[in-house]
Amino acid sequence: MKLKIKQTKLLESLNYAIRGVSNKNLIPILNCIKFDLTADGLYLMSTDNELAIKVLIKKEDIEEIDSLGSFVVSGRYIYEIIKRLPNEIVNLEEVVDSKLLIYTKNSSFNLNCNKVSEFPDLELEEHKTPIYIDKKTFKNIVEQTSFAVGLEESRPALTGINFKINGNKLECTATDSYRLAKKTVELNGKLPENVNIIVPNHNINEIAKMLNDDEKNIEMHIFTNKVIFKFDNIVVLSRLINANYPDTSKLIPNDFSLTMQINMQDFYNSIDRASLLTNEADKNTIKLESKGNNITISSNIPEIGNVEEKLAVTKNNNEEIRIAFSSKYMMDALKSINSLNVELLFNGEIKPIILKNPDSNDLIQLILPIRTY
Amino acid sequence: MKLKIKQTKLLESLNYAIRGVSNKNLIPILNCIKFDLTADGLYLMSTDNELAIKVLIKKEDIEEIDSLGSFVVSGRYIYEIIKRLPNEIVNLEEVVDSKLLIYTKNSSFNLNCNKVSEFPDLELEEHKTPIYIDKKTFKNIVEQTSFAVGLEESRPALTGINFKINGNKLECTATDSYRLAKKTVELNGKLPENVNIIVPNHNINEIAKMLNDDEKNIEMHIFTNKVIFKFDNIVVLSRLINANYPDTSKLIPNDFSLTMQINMQDFYNSIDRASLLTNEADKNTIKLESKGNNITISSNIPEIGNVEEKLAVTKNNNEEIRIAFSSKYMMDALKSINSLNVELLFNGEIKPIILKNPDSNDLIQLILPIRTY
Repeated sequence: MKLKIKQTKLLESLNYAIRGVSNKNLIPILNCIKFDLTADGLYLMSTDNELAIKVLIKKEDIEEIDSLGSFVVSGRYIYEIIKRLPNEIVNLEEVVDSKLLIYTKNSSFNLNCNKVSEFPDLELEEHKTPIYIDKKTFKNIVEQTSFAVGLEESRPALTGINFKINGNKLECTATDSYRLAKKTVELNGKLPENVNIIVPNHNINEIAKMLNDDEKNIEMHIFTNKVIFKFDNIVVLSRLINANYPDTSKLIPNDFSLTMQINMQDFYNSIDRASLLTNEADKNTIKLESKGNNITISSNIPEIGNVEEKLAVTKNNNEEIRIAFSSKYMMDALKSINSLNVELLFNGEIKPIILKNPDSNDLIQLILPIRTY
Repeated sequence: MKLKIKQTKLLESLNYAIRGVSNKNLIPILNCIKFDLTADGLYLMSTDNELAIKVLIKKEDIEEIDSLGSFVVSGRYIYEIIKRLPNEIVNLEEVVDSKLLIYTKNSSFNLNCNKVSEFPDLELEEHKTPIYIDKKTFKNIVEQTSFAVGLEESRPALTGINFKINGNKLECTATDSYRLAKKTVELNGKLPENVNIIVPNHNINEIAKMLNDDEKNIEMHIFTNKVIFKFDNIVVLSRLINANYPDTSKLIPNDFSLTMQINMQDFYNSIDRASLLTNEADKNTIKLESKGNNITISSNIPEIGNVEEKLAVTKNNNEEIRIAFSSKYMMDALKSINSLNVELLFNGEIKPIILKNPDSNDLIQLILPIRTY
């Protein structure tokens, strides 16, 4: 194998492939990137057994192809080398004894290669009915739900984002059992069968980071034990979490005894200040109490001091509420809602608090209250 | 004590005072900031026993003074509170039972105070003959030498920067005994007596970070066991390291058998690439070998591969050199030299390498070679 390629072009694709390279040193071949120069162009492949990534640099983006072939080389080393080379033409050439020669005008690297035959098969087949989501929506799904996943390995189902498809409705849910984020997206076409999968949180975040800001779609090819994402010249496989996602459909009520609207930024800033006088051991508890068209947010650490914040609100009736919750969870939820005002929905002090954009039901944030009164 | 002050004004000064607040929780009073409202204005004071800081907010920068007085309050809490308050007028008021009330239109904080009498005396007296250095030069001293200090507590003298004054010549030296950085500055006036002190590296870095970019001077008031810096409305005390600094004056020879000039950026980039195939266990060793008007920089990790970089140089004679050194030390030294070309001075492969700007002797970087040949 022998080719000439622009440093910028190769680096751009390595920036994707490096995300699939394992950071652990347990299985050396998983620290590698496989280069496969075919009639289509140059494929870069990596896998850490959680994610698998395949990037194509098209033939027309390669300066010169002398001979086809493959090699497998340390991902971290080749990435760091290409990153530091000047913006020139880079020569890649496999030489005798499984050595890779990388050279430019003044630099010359020799890297030892691993056996091509040891690199795992990535199994990146296509599904006959993929779903299509525009990239911006996909990034929103991840940003607006991912923070709410559970971190405890003892409940593996909660460590991922649940993708549920019925007809043309996609519901994406994340919960750690104290709060829940649910984003609903309308798909362009209907799937022949329902889908209910859990994608590991780390993987879906990695994929969201790989998406640029263009208008194009990302394809999801869903199988029983894996999901394959396709976009641009990139294919990414994520394993699925093999567990049953809890049924969260009954958690969000349809009716509420009290609805409140508050200016988003003022509310966020008040919670942020009140959170200063909370601590993690105490679940960052703060209190919200309404009185007519005002609310008071308060918290205290006895040894340090206390805080009270006052805010004007709009309510749909005269009911008053006294409720306590985690300031951290509230701030996480507020950050995900992109609107001037936020709507808070209550059913008394021991029922979940719902937060949403007053003009949309696409994104629902739920927070369990903390019983203090 | 009672006053009104703009949030931005108070925060600006707290940004300085917070640097003197202890991060350890051992002595609670060292986690505090002392507020002292006097006829001059509001003084903010903090100390962690390494550094002591006193910032004055002048009377004319305070919106309203109702009554003078002092209080001592948790530095971290008041800093985070003021940081998060809106850009409004902030009221600070000491109320009964050693409580501090901080309030704006919608926010109200009560903080428990510590005893004013427990706050240590900062002892920030003035010296009758301070030295004056312009802020930019002072920042250069720190940036260009600080990286070379030793980290081992077993040799305390090396963990600081040595300030040595003879007449109007200030020499600032840092060394970890494998490399040395020396910056020479000409002072405006002569001191009546010689100075030879060691300022802890952490402290001098904190002070450099507090300096803005204006043209004004920083004053150094040097005592036997402390040094006091004055600039703007700020006074900072640093303890000194009580040890004898090694005599480094004979380390830098006057004559060299070979002088070489190289383009700075090309040389740095080559070393940076070659450093990829080195490792810390091996002291990041790379080799430099000259041949006529070219040099080759090379390194290798047997399991991974090797690299060779070629560069053009200008030499002052036909002597050739083969020498090995730490790529990390070389990059640190190069980063400190701000010139298009760098001059390398050699006396054979076992003598120190000197680096400097070809047009100036103000800054000297010395690196010991590693014996490999």
